[in-house]
Amino acid sequence: MTTFRVWAPRAGNAAVEVSGRREPMRPGPSGWWSAALEGVGAGADYAFVTDGGDPLPDPRSPWQPNGVHGPSRTVDHGAFHWTDSGWQAPPLSSAVVYELHVGTFSMEGTFAGAVGHLDHLVELGISHVELMPVQEFSGQWGWGYDGVDLFAPHHCYGEPAGLKALVNACHERGLAVLLDVVYNHLGPAGNYLSRFGPYFSTRHATPWGEAVNLDAEGSYEVRRFLCDNALMWLRDYHFDGLRLDAVHQIFDASAVHFLEQLAEEVAELGAESGRHLVVIAESDLNDPRLVRPREAGGYGLDAQWSDDFHHALHTVLTGEQAGYYADFGSLADLAKSLQMVFVYDGRYSACRARIHGRPIGDLPGWRFLGFLQNHDQVGNRAKGDRSARLMSLGRLKIGAALVLCSPFVPMLFQGEEFAASTPFPYFSQHQELQLARGVSEGRKREFQAFGWDPLDIPDPQDPQTFRRARLDWNEVACAPHAQMLEWHRRLIALRRSTPALCDGRLREVEVQFDEERAWLTMTRGPIVVALNLAAASQVVPVAFGATVRLSSDDAACRVSGKEAYLGPDSVLILEAC
Amino acid sequence: MTTFRVWAPRAGNAAVEVSGRREPMRPGPSGWWSAALEGVGAGADYAFVTDGGDPLPDPRSPWQPNGVHGPSRTVDHGAFHWTDSGWQAPPLSSAVVYELHVGTFSMEGTFAGAVGHLDHLVELGISHVELMPVQEFSGQWGWGYDGVDLFAPHHCYGEPAGLKALVNACHERGLAVLLDVVYNHLGPAGNYLSRFGPYFSTRHATPWGEAVNLDAEGSYEVRRFLCDNALMWLRDYHFDGLRLDAVHQIFDASAVHFLEQLAEEVAELGAESGRHLVVIAESDLNDPRLVRPREAGGYGLDAQWSDDFHHALHTVLTGEQAGYYADFGSLADLAKSLQMVFVYDGRYSACRARIHGRPIGDLPGWRFLGFLQNHDQVGNRAKGDRSARLMSLGRLKIGAALVLCSPFVPMLFQGEEFAASTPFPYFSQHQELQLARGVSEGRKREFQAFGWDPLDIPDPQDPQTFRRARLDWNEVACAPHAQMLEWHRRLIALRRSTPALCDGRLREVEVQFDEERAWLTMTRGPIVVALNLAAASQVVPVAFGATVRLSSDDAACRVSGKEAYLGPDSVLILEAC
Repeated sequence: MTTFRVWAPRAGNAAVEVSGRREPMRPGPSGWWSAALEGVGAGADYAFVTDGGDPLPDPRSPWQPNGVHGPSRTVDHGAFHWTDSGWQAPPLSSAVVYELHVGTFSMEGTFAGAVGHLDHLVELGISHVELMPVQEFSGQWGWGYDGVDLFAPHHCYGEPAGLKALVNACHERGLAVLLDVVYNHLGPAGNYLSRFGPYFSTRHATPWGEAVNLDAEGSYEVRRFLCDNALMWLRDYHFDGLRLDAVHQIFDASAVHFLEQLAEEVAELGAESGRHLVVIAESDLNDPRLVRPREAGGYGLDAQWSDDFHHALHTVLTGEQAGYYADFGSLADLAKSLQMVFVYDGRYSACRARIHGRPIGDLPGWRFLGFLQNHDQVGNRAKGDRSARLMSLGRLKIGAALVLCSPFVPMLFQGEEFAASTPFPYFSQHQELQLARGVSEGRKREFQAFGWDPLDIPDPQDPQTFRRARLDWNEVACAPHAQMLEWHRRLIALRRSTPALCDGRLREVEVQFDEERAWLTMTRGPIVVALNLAAASQVVPVAFGATVRLSSDDAACRVSGKEAYLGPDSVLILEAC
Repeated sequence: MTTFRVWAPRAGNAAVEVSGRREPMRPGPSGWWSAALEGVGAGADYAFVTDGGDPLPDPRSPWQPNGVHGPSRTVDHGAFHWTDSGWQAPPLSSAVVYELHVGTFSMEGTFAGAVGHLDHLVELGISHVELMPVQEFSGQWGWGYDGVDLFAPHHCYGEPAGLKALVNACHERGLAVLLDVVYNHLGPAGNYLSRFGPYFSTRHATPWGEAVNLDAEGSYEVRRFLCDNALMWLRDYHFDGLRLDAVHQIFDASAVHFLEQLAEEVAELGAESGRHLVVIAESDLNDPRLVRPREAGGYGLDAQWSDDFHHALHTVLTGEQAGYYADFGSLADLAKSLQMVFVYDGRYSACRARIHGRPIGDLPGWRFLGFLQNHDQVGNRAKGDRSARLMSLGRLKIGAALVLCSPFVPMLFQGEEFAASTPFPYFSQHQELQLARGVSEGRKREFQAFGWDPLDIPDPQDPQTFRRARLDWNEVACAPHAQMLEWHRRLIALRRSTPALCDGRLREVEVQFDEERAWLTMTRGPIVVALNLAAASQVVPVAFGATVRLSSDDAACRVSGKEAYLGPDSVLILEAC
């Protein structure tokens, strides 16, 4: 027997269609309809009909084997054979995260394909894999941020059991797995939620359309929809945590903010099941409230991405000043980000034309993720260029050293560890002609405004744009990719074996720099990271006598007493002797 | 010499027109223009011209002697002769607030007219007068919530010096004065702000139109505009605090919420000047964050209105269940509001169709204002009926007793103290034909939906609707008004002489009730308020032996040992013997 349930508070009647049969559903409290059908088990295709309209997929569909417009299929989450009992994810304070896009991480572009490269991540020293969104979206490929069936894994990546197998394979190798979830909007194609209930609100607007209704009439059930979704991934798919997309586009004036409710419900599930579950936000708010504990008036999320550190680092390494990079560019900003996380902590931001952020207070560094690259910073460039295209190998190594010796939770974007030459541009496969054209042309317009030749901008809808984004694993063995991979391996090994590098106390981070001479040192306990961004060699003072642990350029760099000799674009990792 | 300054960040050029002269203004940093004109002093009429457009009033105009569309007039705030040196407002914890509408409080409807009735307030025992908005709005009369020149007192109420004289006269009598300020929207008529800069935002919507831009481009100056406005009233007009209108319609996703910034700037001014300044919010959020201290993650406002207490009390006394009153109606809710402030503290609200509010934690009762009536609860009824029209004299006395013995800061609405028979319906005098018709018809439509006959609903634009709202001071001397006035006087005197009644610790408030028999007792230290809402006399148990301090009905009520004998619709205030 299967009990079908759907929330349709405005419907006058509702029915479920299963294998050609249409069965009426009974109204229950709070706008819920249900029908218990004998003889229906896992693997049955079904759809809901309200008020005699078209059959529509279940808003909570667990599987859309034929895409966003097709019927839903029942899944028995109890049927999968897990082998990860006793698994415990490591704490964030010692984590190294790896952001991964299932469609391009392997040549197959599937859950099963990803399993084939997990050993590479283990050897690299990764602790947490973070999957970009896998929720069912329109088209065969895409970044995944336009998901519409939030409870269903994208059918082109494999079956639900395939995703479970990927998580299970990670756990077997000692890798925790996080999932990117998008709760600020739903995709434009295949989004039937409004046909069922007041999932969206006109009270607030997002750049991607109507905001999700979290504080108006009916919001109780919409909040339950999202919280239940979060809990489902953690419970039924054994994910160890979630990454919340763009929480600055989640608007909620309720006394208990949706993010606080979500964090609390996830924490409760963790406490009940004895698991260490985390919720990490992508946030453009520079608001420490997100990651402050609930008892201190915060929302109690575990961590958030630190864009200011990225921007400060990226601008110093590339010299870029376009768009929001104009707000950054000095070693002073980079130093501030290493010690205080938010460069904009109540400071006027010229590119935002407003005051931005507030100080983080005494929050530890591991409440923030630090990175040189991520899918957005690479993919939202006109051509999807990775950092390796924008800077010298020396600077790439400097960036990696700062990220992996930073007081933050370091994060790499797939391929970054071997300086993959494949780009990661925006790609989509919208079936709807108008939508497809809109995406293609919008992209061109956007970058033309920045002075790009439209012919240089990859068309997101061109299948080649997607295919070119797939990692080329043959590169791993060749120079200079193998060299970069080894550099990352050593840095991660150093971090994982050096308690001072995982020390979250930001007041223990000492930074010295000379803006004009273009050098910077960061001291964390016995470890000093000394870097030279100048075109010539120079001597950089170090606080104490030290020996070399890692050098980006053995020929040009050395240390003598309290002086580090650094070649152009080079970095030394020193340890007190 | 006068220096004219205006923020017009998008203007290509700007000029000031003074007495027929047009002088160019010089651009300065951050979009500010200025012109220092010799020979221009206080009392000069002026207007600003940007990009050769029409002359417009100054967004920060201190005086609009000819209304919202006319020129602005310079004011020398240093010229008024204040006689309130050494004045210190009493703390909120011992306050009794009186809400007053300048246009209807006196027959004259002016600042000077209000002065004539201040002694009445002193005799009543009021500590704080709260003026409904006096900022320049379109038309000769109105409630004031459609102000557009936020720095100028409404010209029909008197000159700026007239408002200062009113505040000064209050201070001379020992009355503190609060001002109602509207920062969630601006009125529809005479609102020229958008011609100068990005004062409004399309990111959020309010029921009254575009939301004020507090978190998008240019918001730094908009926030300064509002904060400077608040500080101006406190500094130049000697107001002792502000009441913020409907903060639930103030949207701000910044890391430092506008309300927090405002509270902090007001607190700084208070600290600098050694004054006790307060900021009180009207809020429909049931969110204790507003009044929690900043160090505990709150916004640090001093207090907020407590609608739940009003609704719980109003429904119990009237039996009304229309609209949002449907969420209330039991003695249990009333008891909860007396002990925990928010009845909806995370509870599902049927009329909102969502979960509402959160518990207040250990906040003291004086962070909340309690009232039986206010301008909205009276005026937003179809006919503007006061409570005196809706319940027996006995119940009126019960309501007053609960408000004035409550753990909250009690507030009365003008005339409530003598059960004024004059209504307080919504009135306006919009000059713009379409706007006027819209207001009149909108009002009719709104109440027709509730089953009212449109002929019974006063037309807001009819001058009689305004005139009938003016208090009739002749009533004060006649029965039953004199009797009600005396009841209020005695209750206030009791409160002010009984420390236990001003004790903010809510856990000290004990409430017993019997829903079916319709009695309730509230015990606060040695004081017991015992009330009977039944149609017949009954015996109500009291926790300890007590004597009568005040009785609403000497003939029907008495106490004997631990038993209070209460007549129908009556209340006894007892004190432990």
